[in-house]
Amino acid sequence: MEKYAKLWLKYSPKKNNKECGLLKNIVFSGSYTGDKIIENAKKELCLGLKGMLDITPVITEKTSGTACNEGAKGTLSSGKAILDNEEYTVSIKDEQLVIASGSSTGILYGVFDILRTVACEKDVAEAYSCMKKVRPSNPLRMLNHWDNMDGSIERGYSGRSFFYENNEIIINERTVDYARLIASVGINAVVINNVNVKQAASYMITDRYFEKLAELGEIFAGYGIGLYLSLNYASTIEIGGMESADPLDEDVKVWWKEKMAEVFKKIPTLKGFLVKADSEGRPGPFTYGRTQADGANMLADIAKEHGAIIIWRCFVYNCRQDWRDKKTDRARAGYDNFMPMDGDYHDNVILQIKNGPMDFQIREPISPLFGGLRKTNQMLEVQIAQEYTGQQIDLCYLIPMFKEILEFRTYCTDEKDKNWSDIEDIGNDGSYNAGNSDTVADIISGRTFGSRYSGIAAVTNTGNDFNWTGDYLAGANLFGFGRLAFDTGLTSGEIAEEFIRMTISGDDDTVDTIKGILLPSRAIYEKYTCPLGIGWMVKPNTHYGCSVDGYEYDRWGTYHRADHLGLGVDRTDKGTGYALQYNEPNASIYNSAEKCPDELVLFFHHLPYTHVLHSGKTVIQHIYDSHFEGYEEAKQLAAKWETLKDKVDPEIFNNVSERFTRQLYNAREWCDQVNTYFHRISGIEDAKGREIY
Amino acid sequence: MEKYAKLWLKYSPKKNNKECGLLKNIVFSGSYTGDKIIENAKKELCLGLKGMLDITPVITEKTSGTACNEGAKGTLSSGKAILDNEEYTVSIKDEQLVIASGSSTGILYGVFDILRTVACEKDVAEAYSCMKKVRPSNPLRMLNHWDNMDGSIERGYSGRSFFYENNEIIINERTVDYARLIASVGINAVVINNVNVKQAASYMITDRYFEKLAELGEIFAGYGIGLYLSLNYASTIEIGGMESADPLDEDVKVWWKEKMAEVFKKIPTLKGFLVKADSEGRPGPFTYGRTQADGANMLADIAKEHGAIIIWRCFVYNCRQDWRDKKTDRARAGYDNFMPMDGDYHDNVILQIKNGPMDFQIREPISPLFGGLRKTNQMLEVQIAQEYTGQQIDLCYLIPMFKEILEFRTYCTDEKDKNWSDIEDIGNDGSYNAGNSDTVADIISGRTFGSRYSGIAAVTNTGNDFNWTGDYLAGANLFGFGRLAFDTGLTSGEIAEEFIRMTISGDDDTVDTIKGILLPSRAIYEKYTCPLGIGWMVKPNTHYGCSVDGYEYDRWGTYHRADHLGLGVDRTDKGTGYALQYNEPNASIYNSAEKCPDELVLFFHHLPYTHVLHSGKTVIQHIYDSHFEGYEEAKQLAAKWETLKDKVDPEIFNNVSERFTRQLYNAREWCDQVNTYFHRISGIEDAKGREIY
Repeated sequence: MEKYAKLWLKYSPKKNNKECGLLKNIVFSGSYTGDKIIENAKKELCLGLKGMLDITPVITEKTSGTACNEGAKGTLSSGKAILDNEEYTVSIKDEQLVIASGSSTGILYGVFDILRTVACEKDVAEAYSCMKKVRPSNPLRMLNHWDNMDGSIERGYSGRSFFYENNEIIINERTVDYARLIASVGINAVVINNVNVKQAASYMITDRYFEKLAELGEIFAGYGIGLYLSLNYASTIEIGGMESADPLDEDVKVWWKEKMAEVFKKIPTLKGFLVKADSEGRPGPFTYGRTQADGANMLADIAKEHGAIIIWRCFVYNCRQDWRDKKTDRARAGYDNFMPMDGDYHDNVILQIKNGPMDFQIREPISPLFGGLRKTNQMLEVQIAQEYTGQQIDLCYLIPMFKEILEFRTYCTDEKDKNWSDIEDIGNDGSYNAGNSDTVADIISGRTFGSRYSGIAAVTNTGNDFNWTGDYLAGANLFGFGRLAFDTGLTSGEIAEEFIRMTISGDDDTVDTIKGILLPSRAIYEKYTCPLGIGWMVKPNTHYGCSVDGYEYDRWGTYHRADHLGLGVDRTDKGTGYALQYNEPNASIYNSAEKCPDELVLFFHHLPYTHVLHSGKTVIQHIYDSHFEGYEEAKQLAAKWETLKDKVDPEIFNNVSERFTRQLYNAREWCDQVNTYFHRISGIEDAKGREIY
Repeated sequence: MEKYAKLWLKYSPKKNNKECGLLKNIVFSGSYTGDKIIENAKKELCLGLKGMLDITPVITEKTSGTACNEGAKGTLSSGKAILDNEEYTVSIKDEQLVIASGSSTGILYGVFDILRTVACEKDVAEAYSCMKKVRPSNPLRMLNHWDNMDGSIERGYSGRSFFYENNEIIINERTVDYARLIASVGINAVVINNVNVKQAASYMITDRYFEKLAELGEIFAGYGIGLYLSLNYASTIEIGGMESADPLDEDVKVWWKEKMAEVFKKIPTLKGFLVKADSEGRPGPFTYGRTQADGANMLADIAKEHGAIIIWRCFVYNCRQDWRDKKTDRARAGYDNFMPMDGDYHDNVILQIKNGPMDFQIREPISPLFGGLRKTNQMLEVQIAQEYTGQQIDLCYLIPMFKEILEFRTYCTDEKDKNWSDIEDIGNDGSYNAGNSDTVADIISGRTFGSRYSGIAAVTNTGNDFNWTGDYLAGANLFGFGRLAFDTGLTSGEIAEEFIRMTISGDDDTVDTIKGILLPSRAIYEKYTCPLGIGWMVKPNTHYGCSVDGYEYDRWGTYHRADHLGLGVDRTDKGTGYALQYNEPNASIYNSAEKCPDELVLFFHHLPYTHVLHSGKTVIQHIYDSHFEGYEEAKQLAAKWETLKDKVDPEIFNNVSERFTRQLYNAREWCDQVNTYFHRISGIEDAKGREIY
């Protein structure tokens, strides 16, 4: 019995490509330096081909032996210190399969490309008959672990941390396999500790942990993964024993200068820091009357000397709001706090922006900071830890949501603002070619504004459970996030199919069935939980399960404002004005109850239950219908899964089956509680006369 | 600086009685044996008189030297093993103050009587000019500690346990002072561990803890306090390694026989056990298809051999109810589960019954088991830990509530049922004389049905905070519970006055001000929290603060059933039938929306918001008015307290002042949330046009 699942690197025997001579002779070509990454690439290629096809390839290196990048600590202006040139090609030449890249990381990605082709049983000769040229869509493709050093994981639903136990760092075989798994889908950056840096984690930048961190960083580096740490903004106070963390205080700067010199010396592979400041009780520059830019720039200027970057989260809002106050709007906070300083952030600062203005609900509009900020490095933050989206009990394949986010048009590019210097940077998804370089995908890829540091981060869903993600099918979100971050042009279906074939089964019928389960799962979860973009009707603290009024009278700025006549939050020009933070035409669309898309209409408008939606239904009938439908459709998903009883590994089957049992209980509660609540408060009967309690 | 407050035993200097010669010559008279209790009584008397009046009394003993009771281990039929004769008299004879009793405990109580008289600055010569004869109203006057062995306290709001730390029993100076404090108000029984017996606490009946428990029991015994333990019903399984806890299983019985023999040998002062079985996930006889009586009797029969008793809690209900289910009624559960076996419980079993059918809400009807059960020993359980009543943040002087409970007429005595044998047992409150021997006070005193074992228990509010109860004024509930249990004839005002004079100040104006704060505090808490008996609109788990729907869709059987037309639970003959569990005329009164008292009308009836109450107000207007009033009155309490700034000890002033600040925040939340919720759902405007959100 294995200690943990190998997931999409299980390399189980495959039928197709068995006779493929191309796989017996593989060439690594390029101007990379032979390093640990190349060693790992070779090992992986041999392991994979041996396992899947019983082939031991001959690997030939044709390399100039000089790296085209300038090593790990190049100057920032070159942009090469943090970001390798990760482009690669795979082609066929002289009966050999040739992987070419300007970096060893590119070679590694080429290896995983080939292994994926084999694992999915695509014909290798055909797949690479024309040269396949791949350039990652995003410079940074990052996982954020919310792991605490005591071994717990904030919003973790997959067991305990595999990085920490009893305030010690764990390094073992699983650490390496973790690096392999995420490198194989293109992740190139990992923040290994919770953004809420407390207790022992504050001491990560002290010699208590240097040795282990250096070791961990080396393992990551061997797979092209940069090590990042979450930083306690108040380190000068908490570990420095000083009285201030004022970013403009000279003593504070001196302390950080010395500290960073020490840290980067002791952990040579460290690439930078993630900071959550002035957020939900965390300390920050606001305490000293300074701006977010003051805080970020102070750290960034010092980090720059070490070729490192500062990723600064934009999750700053008033988390002590009075529910009686209808003027304050949490949705506005990100834009209000960060837009005024657009252009003030130094060039090795990246603002990390959550996809929506609130906090990872199943449906939110896109943060208006995307398309607002034009002179600031930006990174999109999504969450594959299913905090509000089922906690890896309820199935919620998130890639369709991420696709919507990436494809959202911000209308930020007009001639005067557009930076044409990166015109040759064309993403795999070809979106620039279509003339719309204003989507979120465009912005975070760097091509819209020529940002050097940008990308996408996910709060990860991993833990030390046997299957890593609690629910086997939640593995599709880990796999899918990486794949999508690497290539935003992939479709949700393509990603699902790769995941299923590599992880669960290559049987076509089984693949189709599981795709049919994964693809609609997000829409179904949305249906039986929160209607029309209203959000937040969850149990306080745990965030699992329905509680319509759970946050209605609380301090978190998350309200539905339902009364006997209607519900929703007026965020128009007549309400909080949030809708006007968008560029046109988005602002006008959201500002109008008639134009606003149904799925967001209650996010932007307070409407009577009798308001007629684009769908032709009233708001109240939509609530009833979508909840009954969502529960029914969840039952259908579970029923589909049951048909796979003898077709997939019992370990996988039973795990997912058990989750579906719990999902159905949860879905029924949501359905009945939401419908009952709105039936009781509105007094309006269901047009179809179904049972409401 | 003291380590903790001395509370009502602080014995600070007093002016009155300074020249009282009676206090210089005090006689202990009676047929008691000279023991540790007498030693403690003498010590206390000297300490108190020295501290308060600088008098060192000459104490003369005139005793036959033989106890009228039969020692600690007499036969149960005599009723003396558990319950000493605690009656005492204080009188003046030959210029001496004479305390007479048939037991050393009675002498100790006499000493505390005198010290209280002095502490309250009543004239001693006058107070005892006629012989004062006192017999405790209740045989058992008990505290239940919900302390866990890890040092936490379930529903504790006063710090950590002073009995346990890191799974060890603590015995120190505070242990003795605890015994003195509670003995001084007449407590004669203490259960030292949580009724939810888990982890280490299951091992209390093993040699891991015998030595310390014996020592603790000796300390308690020195103050007339019986030691009791909460028992894990599944001990045969959890510590015995057996597979069953079936009360009719012979092996189970044998195990308990041996275990109890060991326990009572090692802890000679142990008086019995408290058991929570088949309740909220705790194991019990239901698991084996046995009755509660089967379980209780099995343990009691074995305990009887050691002169001990079993106290069996009646808190048995389905805590996994479906909120959709309107037929099941948690309020019915106690009666439904325990009434059918009335008469089946053996004579050393006491059923411990919570005051209401639900769980310590600020307003509930009285449990119909009182007046239902006629052949079963009964004990009333109240809660001075303010779980649902403000958590020692909000002030809630509970004695007025306990008085209401005790004075509730059950109408249980008619000629055929009445047991006249105890006709001479007349309580201090004289209720029997009034011809009504059917109140709760009558029943639990033992006089209604001639029960030998009965009384009153409180889940206590103590912890290791400096002032023992978190809020200094919450000390009035600890003090008051003991005093009331000892003498149910005392008024709430008398008890409050004693507490204030002994603990805070003897200044008449200050006493009046604090009385004016304590006495209405329960009514005020009720006003700003739950209207008309509805209850349970609290935050789940913590039970502090408002959440109207907090339990509405949950599994605990606690619902308000509010919709746009009305609210309340139909517990009449047309609903769950709970009202019919009462004797007449209570059943008819509760069953009728017209006759039912306003304060309970939503507990028994689902009514439209427009229903007119006895008060002349509609239900909705009552909700608005009482919440606005409650918050205003809470502000007045706080303002009154502020006038005492220079009149009471700063330690006390600041503690209470800080609590009031938090109470006002809480009260405002309750007021605004409840009013907003019902305004939104009903759509009915406040007749007075006040601001609702």
